[in-house]
Amino acid sequence: MNEEKDSVGIVSLQYYKIDEKIKFDSGVEFGPVTVAYETYGKLNETCDNVILVIHALTGDAHAAGYRTKEDKKPGWWDTLIGPGKAFDTNKYFVICTNILGGCSGTTGPSSINPETNKPYGISFPVFTIEDTVKVQKKLLDYLGIKSLYCVAGGSMGGMQAMQFVISYPDFVKSAIFIATTSRLSPQAIAFNAVGRNSIISDPNWNNGDYYNSDNKPDRGLSNARMIGHITYLCEEAMYNKFGRRLQNKNHYDFNFDVDFQVESYLQHQGQIFVDRFDANSYLYITKAVDYFDPAEKYGSLSNAFKDSVAKFLVISFDSDWLFPSYQSKEIVKSLMNLGKDVSYCEIKSPCGHDAFLLEYDVQSKIIKSFLNEHIIEVKDE
Amino acid sequence: MNEEKDSVGIVSLQYYKIDEKIKFDSGVEFGPVTVAYETYGKLNETCDNVILVIHALTGDAHAAGYRTKEDKKPGWWDTLIGPGKAFDTNKYFVICTNILGGCSGTTGPSSINPETNKPYGISFPVFTIEDTVKVQKKLLDYLGIKSLYCVAGGSMGGMQAMQFVISYPDFVKSAIFIATTSRLSPQAIAFNAVGRNSIISDPNWNNGDYYNSDNKPDRGLSNARMIGHITYLCEEAMYNKFGRRLQNKNHYDFNFDVDFQVESYLQHQGQIFVDRFDANSYLYITKAVDYFDPAEKYGSLSNAFKDSVAKFLVISFDSDWLFPSYQSKEIVKSLMNLGKDVSYCEIKSPCGHDAFLLEYDVQSKIIKSFLNEHIIEVKDE
Repeated sequence: MNEEKDSVGIVSLQYYKIDEKIKFDSGVEFGPVTVAYETYGKLNETCDNVILVIHALTGDAHAAGYRTKEDKKPGWWDTLIGPGKAFDTNKYFVICTNILGGCSGTTGPSSINPETNKPYGISFPVFTIEDTVKVQKKLLDYLGIKSLYCVAGGSMGGMQAMQFVISYPDFVKSAIFIATTSRLSPQAIAFNAVGRNSIISDPNWNNGDYYNSDNKPDRGLSNARMIGHITYLCEEAMYNKFGRRLQNKNHYDFNFDVDFQVESYLQHQGQIFVDRFDANSYLYITKAVDYFDPAEKYGSLSNAFKDSVAKFLVISFDSDWLFPSYQSKEIVKSLMNLGKDVSYCEIKSPCGHDAFLLEYDVQSKIIKSFLNEHIIEVKDE
Repeated sequence: MNEEKDSVGIVSLQYYKIDEKIKFDSGVEFGPVTVAYETYGKLNETCDNVILVIHALTGDAHAAGYRTKEDKKPGWWDTLIGPGKAFDTNKYFVICTNILGGCSGTTGPSSINPETNKPYGISFPVFTIEDTVKVQKKLLDYLGIKSLYCVAGGSMGGMQAMQFVISYPDFVKSAIFIATTSRLSPQAIAFNAVGRNSIISDPNWNNGDYYNSDNKPDRGLSNARMIGHITYLCEEAMYNKFGRRLQNKNHYDFNFDVDFQVESYLQHQGQIFVDRFDANSYLYITKAVDYFDPAEKYGSLSNAFKDSVAKFLVISFDSDWLFPSYQSKEIVKSLMNLGKDVSYCEIKSPCGHDAFLLEYDVQSKIIKSFLNEHIIEVKDE
């Protein structure tokens, strides 16, 4: 790590075990669930400076700072979380949890089922975005938090932020939805379906039972990641990053090795992903994302949001073709129909869907101005 | 088949064996190559009524008519080829060949290598779009054809049509490029790369040697096809066809079976594809498509086309995001820079890239008016 003034510094993963069973959307009762989380900043005396930040599909609870002094890479939203940053840890107590069903500390299909002493595998129940926020709410209850100053997330994190407001309408004072959607388009479902199919058709997947095997469904998972990565970038980003440039060569190879830089990039992304992510988690989490559709569940999106007391900030990126701006506008429109306090900003960016992780400068300004209210700095005692 | 007045009726696949070796772009000399082809209409006495129609990625030589009386489905461009149709078989002698490296009659990786009496597999040389048109030209030479009244193709067929004009500039009187590009974007390369990766990472692919095995790389090929299909449709087409409708159910299944219609459609497309297509052919043909880049090879696209005497028609579709209109406009611009006779039409369509196979009505009118010159009907003797 660099000794940065604006870094939250060294952080560590904490755990909370929810002992009672949780009733899932599917009707299944499931437990215990251990939630892995990190916190940054300090809870103020009035407990009203809490911001819940929620990660995207393959993220984790490590949103800011460094895990060790040797770490070269900070948390995934370190550009936005820290002293003086958009989510200003001098003012706010920021919490980030690993998602239910994930593979970075929170109970998921790779966790040991205490009843069998074996990993759950696909005996883990299929869950929804609603279930994931239930788990987060239980952590907040445990921490004694009575309200959220803000809930914020990008991509799938934005869906969960939305669902948090819907599930706990009087618990949340403000909400930020970035590069997200209230329901996947059939095209986005299609990409997820092909990714899952790629995993399931890998013989090493073995019906989800591969944890004690030397052969994991790495090829299927890697392929799923490659497909995902295409959707996170956009054509302009790909032209900027790779164009049609060849990888370490001047001429075509006339074989089936990598010729183009873009192929090399995707293969690399696929390969490094399998070291940090569980194939079954990928199946479960993409399924939860596909299922998310509050307009369907509550009759309309406006109906879903009707009891909320929050003010809203919705941000989209013009080059995001996975969750295009028109989907953010649908959210904004439903909130406006309710007379809610909502701000919307479409940011011009050449980064595609990934922009929510990359365009920190302009996002910082917008988020700061949105959050900048009565909360004052939390001083050291 | 239906007894249609405007059908070419029953057609049969013909074969021509090119005995001499062909020098491929890679430097490899390869042969013999057998070309599978169909013809529709009659060659006129002056041999100047020939139209070469070229198929797309997974097409074949069966462009029009029916193979048997029992056939329910006609050839892939039957809507455009036949008596009185856009490619009017009362006037024109239409030829369509299966591509080099294909698996529907023309020599490809699944063909028997006469030197080993085993299928070529990946000992088949990697070829380019330039090589594929060399093979077509040899067939035309054999048939005694001294010039083409027109060369036409959609998607990869359009690339080959382009290359035909570039390779044999004084042989072609007119050319029609539909829903195509003079070079793939990095995003399109990425989709092909993931498709190939899906095949190669299927253990049944077995380094391309699976022809005598009961276990073929069907799962990898099926996945590749699913990815391809997403790019052939567009978001609007997917909303129109599937929306977020569930497949034969009213509620989510809460398992990893198919929930949405779009998933079911893609899986079905993947499954039926493996019965008609060879995984190795998919590797070779997508590689040829990735390599196609005449601007790179000839210094500029204008330079590539400079010796051509043809007049041109370029058609694109506004919802085609695989080969978007701007890529067609690049072709048009390069031809205009040369002062060539070029017409361009962007057709409004909700069908995405697939529109070149579906939007026959408007295409018919445009193509008819483009072709409608001095050629008169070829009467039966």
